[in-house]
Amino acid sequence: MKIYTRTGDEGKTGVIGGRIEKDDVRVEAYGTIDELNALIGEAMIRMNAQVYADLLTDLTEIQHELFDAGGDLAQVGKNRKYKVTRDMVTRLEELIDKYDAECPPIQRFILPGGSPVSAALHMCRVVARRAERCVVTLTREQETNDEVRRYLNRLSDFFFVAARVANVRAGVPDVEYKRGGQVFG
Amino acid sequence: MKIYTRTGDEGKTGVIGGRIEKDDVRVEAYGTIDELNALIGEAMIRMNAQVYADLLTDLTEIQHELFDAGGDLAQVGKNRKYKVTRDMVTRLEELIDKYDAECPPIQRFILPGGSPVSAALHMCRVVARRAERCVVTLTREQETNDEVRRYLNRLSDFFFVAARVANVRAGVPDVEYKRGGQVFG
Amino acid sequence: MKIYTRTGDEGKTGVIGGRIEKDDVRVEAYGTIDELNALIGEAMIRMNAQVYADLLTDLTEIQHELFDAGGDLAQVGKNRKYKVTRDMVTRLEELIDKYDAECPPIQRFILPGGSPVSAALHMCRVVARRAERCVVTLTREQETNDEVRRYLNRLSDFFFVAARVANVRAGVPDVEYKRGGQVFG
Ligand code: B12
Ligand code: B12
Ligand code: B12
Ligand SMILES: C[C@H]1O[C@@H](n2cnc3c(N)ncnc32)[C@H](O)[C@@H]1O
Ligand SMILES: C[C@H]1O[C@@H](n2cnc3c(N)ncnc32)[C@H](O)[C@@H]1O
Ligand SMILES: C[C@H]1O[C@@H](n2cnc3c(N)ncnc32)[C@H](O)[C@@H]1O
Ligand SMILES: [Mg+2]
Ligand SMILES: [Mg+2]
Ligand SMILES: [Mg+2]
Repeated sequence: MKIYTRTGDEGKTGVIGGRIEKDDVRVEAYGTIDELNALIGEAMIRMNAQVYADLLTDLTEIQHELFDAGGDLAQVGKNRKYKVTRDMVTRLEELIDKYDAECPPIQRFILPGGSPVSAALHMCRVVARRAERCVVTLTREQETNDEVRRYLNRLSDFFFVAARVANVRAGVPDVEYKRGGQVFG
Repeated sequence: MKIYTRTGDEGKTGVIGGRIEKDDVRVEAYGTIDELNALIGEAMIRMNAQVYADLLTDLTEIQHELFDAGGDLAQVGKNRKYKVTRDMVTRLEELIDKYDAECPPIQRFILPGGSPVSAALHMCRVVARRAERCVVTLTREQETNDEVRRYLNRLSDFFFVAARVANVRAGVPDVEYKRGGQVFG
Repeated sequence: MKIYTRTGDEGKTGVIGGRIEKDDVRVEAYGTIDELNALIGEAMIRMNAQVYADLLTDLTEIQHELFDAGGDLAQVGKNRKYKVTRDMVTRLEELIDKYDAECPPIQRFILPGGSPVSAALHMCRVVARRAERCVVTLTREQETNDEVRRYLNRLSDFFFVAARVANVRAGVPDVEYKRGGQVFG
């Protein structure tokens, strides 16, 4: 079985229930989710298995959920079976609350970086937001599961808190943006 | 010789045979190829020179080929000299077959990650696909070398196989997406 | 204080002085600046504190300046207070001249990569250029601080020189693109 099929060489591609252009906003959306998933894999390989046991478990589940999300967006036919639900968004909120409890209070923007794990989680954060922007366009222009848009919005806040936790665990204080006001609250 | 020329400060830029807006789909296309090339450099610096001698050689050649590809896309004049050919696509297929032989059979989607080299190669894979989407738009809307579109399609499958090989060599089994079906075959 | 507010779940979001769609070119622009800032954090965590003391200081200031830039772009009201000035662009030129003096002369394109720090700085370079393209669109279509467009143009040349310096300090010679001409001069 060869992985390449040559069927997409003219710019069109198969989706679940149809065939569309590769630069369709729908393909851009689940392609950017694929990009986010790759960055999560990158963040995970930086994590010590003991220090980050909880985050590794949570991120693995999120990787599966992003396949669910992309699969929902990839459906164009009449009989669609969506996998992403409101419960998955609520679960992200519980994860955010859990990790946020480990962080000091925050008032101002912080410079992304500080430690290898935190830097990787900030990269996940910003690409989750790029994926969210694509999904906002898709959800406005075509029929799709609008729970994916909500899931990605919550997910970038999860990555913000995870990035902060990483610096707490690395013993690296976050550096505040020096010309900004008190924006959180 | 100063690297900065200040000539692009108003948003237009020189291409080979003309001057266009920096947000033209043409510039976006070869700019995204530049982004892919940078990620290949990242993957390469993670590779042990003995364990990955073959991949390092192949990726160096691909980096040169991506300069060829970007150079083709950057041409807007009448007398164009393209460098990317069908033979370069066929060569990628031979590389894919070579590395695929080292991998166990695959039936289901895999979570990107597992080892540092594999994670970096998945990042190359997803950005090659983003570059491909830009090139699909450019090839539809303007005159360009349509072999570049074919080359990038094949290239992302090359990165998939390379990412799998990296986990084989690192002794890290790929994790299957648990809610998906048997999609490969 | 919970970081998530759920107010952006329908695809619109608050900016400074208004509320717009998350896929508005304005949000795309400062969102891509956020992505660049995350990649700078990544480059910085790779740098040895002694070998790269100067670059670490300069990059920290650039991270603050990118918050200034994003803050300028995020303003849509009548009374705007911009932070990015021509002086900040001139300062980048002085930094470029400073680091370029440490590098051998260059005539041809170089393959991005070579060392971990250089690879990360090339990634900053290409994403600065992607942010620049977004800002070119925004500056053409809406009212904003056009100094940000100029700043990002100069910044990607800064990252090119910084990436070259990183390979000089790592003792890794840059590899020239073998099928290109003498493009610098
Ligand atoms: C969507 C999609 C993706 C998405 C997946 C996640 C997402 N949606 O965002 C993304 C973009 C990530 C992706 C990536 C890739 N993809 Co893709 N993808 C597809 C696509 C369009 C649908 C696959 C899918 O999700 N099917 C889901 C449903 C519809 O199918 P299913 O899982 O088999 O389940 C159904 C049935 O099997 C059944 N079922 C499911 N489970 C079970 C269990 C039992 C017991 C039973 C009885 C029934 C059952 O019910 C389901 C609903 O009807 C297919 C093409 C197509 N139209 O099928 C290509 C396809 C599978 N992909 C392909 C390829 C090559 C890839 C990549 C390698 C490309 C690359 N180089 O990056 C990567 C690999 C990614 C990885 N990490 O493994 C090729 C495979 C070619 C081959 N030789 O087999 C395909 C066939 C496209 C093509 N023609 O080239 N892909
Ligand atoms: C396309 C392009 C790119 C592409 C290149 C790959 C691609 N195409 O995707 C990308 C986007 C990667 C790029 C990046 C950069 N670029 Co650029 N790029 C250009 C551009 C538009 C064309 C260069 C080119 O490929 N020329 C190819 C052909 C046309 O020229 P040639 O190689 O010299 O070959 C011809 C002749 O020389 C002859 N020839 C070739 N070889 C030989 C050999 C012999 C023996 C002979 C006799 C003849 C000969 O035949 C050829 C065809 O006519 C030029 C501007 C311009 N319009 O020229 C800027 C330009 C070279 N780039 C420039 C810069 C600054 C950069 C970056 C540093 C920007 C950045 N900060 O990221 C990076 C550096 C990248 C790196 N890794 O080295 C500047 C250089 C300024 C300076 N001070 O010299 C230029 C001049 C643009 C500008 N005005 O600012 N660039
Ligand atoms: C722009 C913006 C961003 C930009 C910031 C940089 C940029 N512009 O590119 C980016 C995209 C990076 C960003 C990211 C995030 N953001 Co934001 N962001 C905003 C936004 C729209 C404006 C914030 C801002 O810059 N205000 C600047 C000015 C207007 O306010 P100011 O700094 O307070 O200063 C004024 C006054 O305070 C006063 N002032 C300032 N300093 C001083 C000092 C003194 C002594 C005095 C007297 C007065 C004074 O003068 C200023 C001008 O009037 C707000 C929402 C809004 N409309 O306010 C959200 C907001 C602050 N962000 C929010 C969030 C959640 C985030 C992220 C965590 C999202 C994520 N998951 O990625 C990240 C965190 C990034 C980080 N590294 O810390 C939330 C916070 C929610 C909460 N629970 O508090 C907000 C409120 C949006 C929302 N409603 O959800 N954000
Ligand atoms: C924190 C601030 O970032 C902006 N914002 C909200 N969602 C996104 C996104 N997906 N991408 C980029 N910027 C976003 C809004 O302006 C918000 O108020
Ligand atoms: C594997 C699946 O990914 C989608 N696909 C094909 N090419 C691209 C690309 N360049 N970017 C994102 N998604 C793509 C198609 O739906 C294909 O079937
Ligand atoms: C070096 C060459 O790269 C192109 N160029 C200039 N600015 C950008 C950018 N922001 N993104 C991508 N390509 C760019 C122009 O063609 C220039 O001449
Ligand atoms: Mg949000
Ligand atoms: Mg393909
Ligand atoms: Mg420039």
